[in-house]
Amino acid sequence: MRFFRSFLTAVAATWLLAVAPALAAPAAPTPSTRIDPTYWFVGMKNPKLQLLVNAPGIASSQVSLATYPGVTLDGFQKLESPNYLIVNLTVTPQAQPGKLKLQFKGAKSLTYSYELRPRNQDPARTQGLTQADFIYFLMPDRFSNGDLKNDVVKSTRVNHIARDSMYARHGGDLKGIENHFAYIKQLGATAIWPTPIVENDMPKASYHGYAVTDCYKIDPRYGTNQEYVQFVKNAHGQGLKVIQDIVLNHWGSYHHLFLDKPAADWFHAFPTFTRSNYNAFALNDPYASKRDYQLFNDGWFDTSMPDVNQGNPLVATYLIQNFLWWVESTGLDGYRIDTYPYSEPKFLMAWGKAIADEYPKLAMFGEAWEGTEAEQAFFAQNILPPVNGFKSNLPGVLDFQICFGISDALKGDNGDLSKLYHALQGDWLYTDATRNVPFLDNHDMSRFYSVIGEDFAKYKMGIAWLLTLRGTPQLYYGTEVLMKNFSDPDGKVREDFPGGWAGDKTNYFATRPGQAGEAFDYVSKLANYRKSHPVLSSGKLMQFIPQDGVYTYFRYNEGGECVMIIANNTKEVKKVDGTRYAERTDGFSSGVEVVSGAAIANLKTLTVPAHTAWVVELRK
Amino acid sequence: MRFFRSFLTAVAATWLLAVAPALAAPAAPTPSTRIDPTYWFVGMKNPKLQLLVNAPGIASSQVSLATYPGVTLDGFQKLESPNYLIVNLTVTPQAQPGKLKLQFKGAKSLTYSYELRPRNQDPARTQGLTQADFIYFLMPDRFSNGDLKNDVVKSTRVNHIARDSMYARHGGDLKGIENHFAYIKQLGATAIWPTPIVENDMPKASYHGYAVTDCYKIDPRYGTNQEYVQFVKNAHGQGLKVIQDIVLNHWGSYHHLFLDKPAADWFHAFPTFTRSNYNAFALNDPYASKRDYQLFNDGWFDTSMPDVNQGNPLVATYLIQNFLWWVESTGLDGYRIDTYPYSEPKFLMAWGKAIADEYPKLAMFGEAWEGTEAEQAFFAQNILPPVNGFKSNLPGVLDFQICFGISDALKGDNGDLSKLYHALQGDWLYTDATRNVPFLDNHDMSRFYSVIGEDFAKYKMGIAWLLTLRGTPQLYYGTEVLMKNFSDPDGKVREDFPGGWAGDKTNYFATRPGQAGEAFDYVSKLANYRKSHPVLSSGKLMQFIPQDGVYTYFRYNEGGECVMIIANNTKEVKKVDGTRYAERTDGFSSGVEVVSGAAIANLKTLTVPAHTAWVVELRK
Repeated sequence: MRFFRSFLTAVAATWLLAVAPALAAPAAPTPSTRIDPTYWFVGMKNPKLQLLVNAPGIASSQVSLATYPGVTLDGFQKLESPNYLIVNLTVTPQAQPGKLKLQFKGAKSLTYSYELRPRNQDPARTQGLTQADFIYFLMPDRFSNGDLKNDVVKSTRVNHIARDSMYARHGGDLKGIENHFAYIKQLGATAIWPTPIVENDMPKASYHGYAVTDCYKIDPRYGTNQEYVQFVKNAHGQGLKVIQDIVLNHWGSYHHLFLDKPAADWFHAFPTFTRSNYNAFALNDPYASKRDYQLFNDGWFDTSMPDVNQGNPLVATYLIQNFLWWVESTGLDGYRIDTYPYSEPKFLMAWGKAIADEYPKLAMFGEAWEGTEAEQAFFAQNILPPVNGFKSNLPGVLDFQICFGISDALKGDNGDLSKLYHALQGDWLYTDATRNVPFLDNHDMSRFYSVIGEDFAKYKMGIAWLLTLRGTPQLYYGTEVLMKNFSDPDGKVREDFPGGWAGDKTNYFATRPGQAGEAFDYVSKLANYRKSHPVLSSGKLMQFIPQDGVYTYFRYNEGGECVMIIANNTKEVKKVDGTRYAERTDGFSSGVEVVSGAAIANLKTLTVPAHTAWVVELRK
Repeated sequence: MRFFRSFLTAVAATWLLAVAPALAAPAAPTPSTRIDPTYWFVGMKNPKLQLLVNAPGIASSQVSLATYPGVTLDGFQKLESPNYLIVNLTVTPQAQPGKLKLQFKGAKSLTYSYELRPRNQDPARTQGLTQADFIYFLMPDRFSNGDLKNDVVKSTRVNHIARDSMYARHGGDLKGIENHFAYIKQLGATAIWPTPIVENDMPKASYHGYAVTDCYKIDPRYGTNQEYVQFVKNAHGQGLKVIQDIVLNHWGSYHHLFLDKPAADWFHAFPTFTRSNYNAFALNDPYASKRDYQLFNDGWFDTSMPDVNQGNPLVATYLIQNFLWWVESTGLDGYRIDTYPYSEPKFLMAWGKAIADEYPKLAMFGEAWEGTEAEQAFFAQNILPPVNGFKSNLPGVLDFQICFGISDALKGDNGDLSKLYHALQGDWLYTDATRNVPFLDNHDMSRFYSVIGEDFAKYKMGIAWLLTLRGTPQLYYGTEVLMKNFSDPDGKVREDFPGGWAGDKTNYFATRPGQAGEAFDYVSKLANYRKSHPVLSSGKLMQFIPQDGVYTYFRYNEGGECVMIIANNTKEVKKVDGTRYAERTDGFSSGVEVVSGAAIANLKTLTVPAHTAWVVELRK
């Protein structure tokens, strides 16, 4: 997620109307009792369990646990608010599934039945990602409306839909995505990443999903928790993986734990609203002021997004448990972590370790929207020693350098290829850059097709690079049918997918006439070729320094397979001396361009048309 | 040194006339006997000594050494050429100074008296550099002609001077520099770095010095070896240090060891002339082709500059000994290493270790003209593990990132400060970035004053940054008197210093009217303040993220001294909220701008004029 002025304008009212009063005088909590995590599991590697109990006046209670073999009550702890108690348990490996009886005795006495569930051992769950995968990234509110019954949920703060407003909810949901699993598969994608699907019960712009109001609940406009579990299961059944988009750094200002805070120190607060400086470079600047460092980490991402204090160990544990819970509850395959650098460095290390210890196969990649290769690598597992005590354990990051590199290359008549070359060269700093996620655009950026001047030849070049570079590529919904627009305002790049709503005049799920169809077919052909030719995803990579507007690299393996990706990035036909690539082409005599099927008879002299990338399977 | 098209044009004829025939049929060697190193020393830490003996037909000789206590003959070795022998000696710590008798018996018998000199223990020698230093960088041919007798040296290939030609020699020399030690000191500089002063007996463009033809001889147009020794001694006597500019990667095509090669494998050769790809990124690109890697390292820097094969251990030793010899012979204070990344990585490690083992105080910094902070840091001592077996042991590099950062900042009305901020932030990758050498321009770049549009206000900003950042700053001769020009052709930025030649109409050594004088005074005042206030050079550094066109950093120490450098890089007056800097300004109430002497009464609100950098000594 990135801060945009347009976004600020849209939510400014939120701050004035909701957050400011909330800071001054929390709204009354709902009178029911709630415990987070909402249930837990037996047999977790870490036997410790921290419950956050929320009920009016509960803080003055004494807690006891009815005898339960394998479970002990380690203690309980008051917080600042009268309405919360922390209860610490140990759930040993010997504990069986069942219900714990927790007794709270005090001004108000209460018995709570807390559920311990069995772990789900289905091997189809939590598969993680490999380079063979191809991620389809979408906004669930904007992709397809599959369930009209959940369009308007009376209990939420926005109880209407309005497709003509870019900040209103449009009605898209989990069922809508599910209805189009076949489309996504036809495209050649193997994984789905929706923007956050947990509750965002915000009064404005809640559709984007990055202002969480309940960490344990699917937004009812998308479906129920049970429907989400089923969604993941159905996806797996179709050979599709599911990536959950999560936010560690901040919550929405209508989060129940912000409206009625367990303690003031669960959030970073300033005398007046204080924004992050959005400058992650302060984290590893040897000359940084404490102020710049703190502003980056503790400043709010936006007025409606309170910055969670992960330096508070109770909060850290709350967050860790929450994201263990989602994996165990659903069997999801990976986490995409929003605004990764903005969280506290030491918390990120603890969080990443706890999740990976429990789910070593889970995929994890973060958003680190940074301007240089080194700074991006700083936020992933890398070859560097710890800096200021921080050493990222995040397997991969969204590869903004590749995104910028492809854009730089394709802007103008003879774009600059060096940024793309350097984006890959920069992999020397990573432990394993194949876990990065290259992409062309996303929900915060101008759409790729607009960035490149709606030039279809360049479009194919971008897709060719995306699907043949190392890493697990991501495509933003609609890019496959040439959806366009610039990101100011960002609502423009979050338009409904044509055909996602009953009665849509254009329905790209059904038919894709003209260039939209050509685009889809290009992506689909290449992605499906990629699926059936692992050399293109898991093969070794060798690149040649861009020369004279031509950039060439190879994917190859020990088995003698080799694919050449040669791109002429100029507006003139190029005759390329192929002997420069002898290191990789020796032993091969010809090739076939895998999308067009065209024969490439001569590897010694390659005549590549203007603005063309060939993906050439080499033949002996 | 950087390859420029203009330079190519100038030397193209050289390749055709000289190098090409030389490759085909070496010119006849001179018939005299020569041994490199031309003499050696007793008491070196490494007792091994490799002599390269050159005499017609010497290869068939048997070698013996007349008894000399403490010295043994370990063996000798023929090379491809009949005219060379390698002789290996051990010079133990017990050996005394004196003359070895080496006997060569064969077709032609010969006795050679080889001198072992005592080491010079004068503590004034080889002081190294600290951040307190300030380097004045000049081209000796273009700075001042102090000795008319060496203007034309009949035995050299260019036996005339022509001040009206930018590629001819102009007559400048060591004596000319020496004559102006007082000027350099008045400017506040503490060290002199001339472009290479060893023999460049090339038929064209030899003035620049990077095409060495004899590794053991001062170019006779600059002076004799003895005069250079005296030059260093006199500099030290005046409190000035001397940096020698050296080239490890290549020699001139008229180098005696290229005209008559000891063996073909002393140089990198290709079937036809093959240029380096100038792409150091191939060294640490995990996907680099062998071809790109090899082209970078082994390709020639230019037609007239054969690439020395440092992978040959005999060549490596030849180079190591050569640069031990210069330090021991002269007491010089540091090496500036040209085209550092172009040498073979493993050789660089061996060379750097050998030199530092013997001279731990010697300063060493290299030219690594790279486009990113990380790539630049790759070529200095850094926090990274070895990459492809390479881990640089070079203490520092010329800080191109700061140079680019300052240029970026000062171009246009409201230049971009982020590159400068990032140049410093990038220090996180270095073991110790204080050993880097920041600069504004050099002999290969457009002159700073031209780059910034001859804007005197911006000029002072650049100087203020240069002299207050970490590291040992370098100023290119003439920048202090606003010499200008763009570097295409590069001769334009290598013009004679006005007053360096008797009869010059303008003599800036004597009088500096107008803005040239103002510029000199600005540099001189700040450099001399810096000299007397170590907080400005060795103090800690804290920077604040540039905001609203204002960039502020501090140099401070435990002793309570603090200097604020605050720069308004916009075309409008800025009222700056100084409370942002409380971390550093608390405890101070006012300040004095150290160049103008202006009082800064209020640190809470700072009103900084357009395009102005203040260097403010804070007061309690």
